Amino acid sequence: MKKDDKILDLFKKNRNSFLSGEEISRALGISRQALWKHIEKLREIGYIIEAVPHLGYKLLAVPDKILVPEIRWNLKTKFIGKEIYFYESVGSTNNVAYELAEEGAGEGTVVIANEQTKGKGRLGRKWVSPGGRGIYLSCVLRPDILPNEVPKITLVAAVSAAKAIRKFLHIEGLIRWPNDILISDRKAGGILTELKGELDRVNFVILGIGINVNTPKSALPKGSTSLKEESKSSKDFSRVELVKILLETLEKEYMKFKEDGFSTIRHELKSYSCALGRYVSITTSGKKRFHGKAIDINDNGGLVVKLDDGSRKTFLSGDVALIR
Amino acid sequence: MKKDDKILDLFKKNRNSFLSGEEISRALGISRQALWKHIEKLREIGYIIEAVPHLGYKLLAVPDKILVPEIRWNLKTKFIGKEIYFYESVGSTNNVAYELAEEGAGEGTVVIANEQTKGKGRLGRKWVSPGGRGIYLSCVLRPDILPNEVPKITLVAAVSAAKAIRKFLHIEGLIRWPNDILISDRKAGGILTELKGELDRVNFVILGIGINVNTPKSALPKGSTSLKEESKSSKDFSRVELVKILLETLEKEYMKFKEDGFSTIRHELKSYSCALGRYVSITTSGKKRFHGKAIDINDNGGLVVKLDDGSRKTFLSGDVALIR
Repeated sequence: MKKDDKILDLFKKNRNSFLSGEEISRALGISRQALWKHIEKLREIGYIIEAVPHLGYKLLAVPDKILVPEIRWNLKTKFIGKEIYFYESVGSTNNVAYELAEEGAGEGTVVIANEQTKGKGRLGRKWVSPGGRGIYLSCVLRPDILPNEVPKITLVAAVSAAKAIRKFLHIEGLIRWPNDILISDRKAGGILTELKGELDRVNFVILGIGINVNTPKSALPKGSTSLKEESKSSKDFSRVELVKILLETLEKEYMKFKEDGFSTIRHELKSYSCALGRYVSITTSGKKRFHGKAIDINDNGGLVVKLDDGSRKTFLSGDVALIR
Repeated sequence: MKKDDKILDLFKKNRNSFLSGEEISRALGISRQALWKHIEKLREIGYIIEAVPHLGYKLLAVPDKILVPEIRWNLKTKFIGKEIYFYESVGSTNNVAYELAEEGAGEGTVVIANEQTKGKGRLGRKWVSPGGRGIYLSCVLRPDILPNEVPKITLVAAVSAAKAIRKFLHIEGLIRWPNDILISDRKAGGILTELKGELDRVNFVILGIGINVNTPKSALPKGSTSLKEESKSSKDFSRVELVKILLETLEKEYMKFKEDGFSTIRHELKSYSCALGRYVSITTSGKKRFHGKAIDINDNGGLVVKLDDGSRKTFLSGDVALIR
C-alpha cells in the first residue's frame, strides 16, 4: 500500500475520531513533517481533513471524484483492478488499455477516466462520455479461449454490469443482447469488446464498460438514460462505489466463466435479457434485417429467433430493436 | 512512378541497347547532372549500369536483393503491394504491419524484410528467418467479415502461397491445413494471421507469409526445407520474382473470396491439401489430441475428421500431424 493509501486507510478505520500526528507517523514510519506533506497532498486532491492541535487529524469528507485510492480501498478482488490507470480526460479508455496490453499489461489491469473525448461504441459508433458524470472504464483480460468465443466475454460483462447496477441501486438493469444495458427500455450502459488474436488463440481482450451514472438526459443521445434519471434521485450517486461493485462482480462472473464454462452464465443472462419472448428486429453487419420472436440464447451465446416464416435462426451478432 | 523507378523502367524496356543520357534526361524532365546522381544511387544499391561516352547507359544486371522498385516493376496488382515498406532487418514483419495498420495503413500495404530477428509462427512459435534467404512479408487486409471468418483468410493465403510456388517452380507445394506449406512432407512455408477486431467486425487482418526460398537445410529446424533444397537447384532463386507472383496470386484469390465467397476457394484448397484421405493426429489448443482419417474441408474451412470410433468431428483449428 502506498503512503497516501495507508493514511486514508487509518482514517477510514477510525471514522469519527481524531488520530494524533504521532500515531500516524509511527504507523507509517515517517517524520511528522513528511506526514504533514501527505496531508496537504490529500487536501489538494479534495479530501477534507480536519487538524486540531493536541488532538490530531480527522477525515471529514471524501471528494466526489473518481480516485484510485478510493476504488482500491477495501476492493474485494484478486486481480481485476490490482493495477489501475486513471485519466482525468482521455480519448478512449479502450484505446489506452489496448496499448497497455500490447506492452504487456497483465490480466485485470483497469483504465478509468473521468471523461472521454472520443468514447467508442460498437461498430465505430460514439459513446457520449461527459466529464464527471459516468463510468468509463476498460479492463485487460487474457482468457485462454479461441477468438470465436470472445462474444461470450461480452455477455459475461453484460451480466456483470446489469448485476452490479441491481446491487448498487435495486433498479432493474436489463440486457439487450448482446451488449447494451437498458433501464425501462432506454440505454444506460454498454459493453465494447475488442480483441487482438491469431487463428487459434486470443492475445488479449479489452473489455470496455460505459455506464451513464449521473448524466442528465439533456447530455445524452435520444433513447439513452442514466441511473440518476431513472431513479429520480435528486443527488448524485457515488461513481466510485459503483465501480467497486462492478469490478468485484466482473471478477466473480469472469471466474465462473473460466472455471465452469459459459453455461453457468447463460441462465442469468437469459433472466436479465429484455429481448426474450419479445418481437424484435435484428440488423446484421451485412445490413440485412430480420423480424421475429426472440426465444432463446444458446450455449454459444447466440440469440435464437423464430422468424416470421416459422423458421428458427441463430444470430451471433447484430443490432436488436425491441418492437413490441 | 518515382524517378529511380522510371529510369529502371526505361532500361528494362530497352534491354540490350544503350540509352543516351539526353534521351533519359528528357523523358524524366531532369538535368544531365541530376540523372548522373540517380545513376550513382542505383549503382550503390547494386545495379550494374554501364556508361559509355557518346553511347549512353545500359543496364547490365539487377542485384540479387529484395528491392522495392524491382517488386513494383510490372507488378500486376490493383492494391496489394501498391504501398511497400522494406526493411533490411526487422523483428517481425507482422508486428510492423500491425503498427502500420493501427496508424491507418490501407488494404494491401505490404511489409517485407530481408531478415527477421524475431520471426513469428503460430501460437508464439518462432519462424527462422535468416537474412537474404527467404521471403518474409506481411500484408494488411481490411475485409468486411466477422472475426469468426478470419480463419478463412488464412486458407485463402495458403492456397495463394501453394499456387505461387507451383507457378514459380513447377514444384508441388501442398497445404497442411490450416497454415503450412509443405513440399515432400517438409515445411517450406507458413501463414501467420493476426487480427484486431470487435464483436461483429474486423478492424484489420495482418497476413504474414514466410517462405524458405534459398535457405540451406542446415539453417532450418528439423522437418523444414526450402525451395532450393527441394528442387536440387545449384543456384539461388530470385526472391523478387516469387514475391511478385505471390502478391499477384494473393490478390486474385482474395478478390475471389471477397466477391464469390469461400466456396470458390474450397475446391482448390481441397486439391492442394496433403491431409485429406490420410490418417492424421490433431492437437487442439486445449492440448487434446485426436486421431482419425481427414475426409473433408467444409464450407467454413473446418477440417472434417472421421475419428477412430467412427464418429465425425470438425476442427476449426489445431496442429495436424500426418501419420500415414
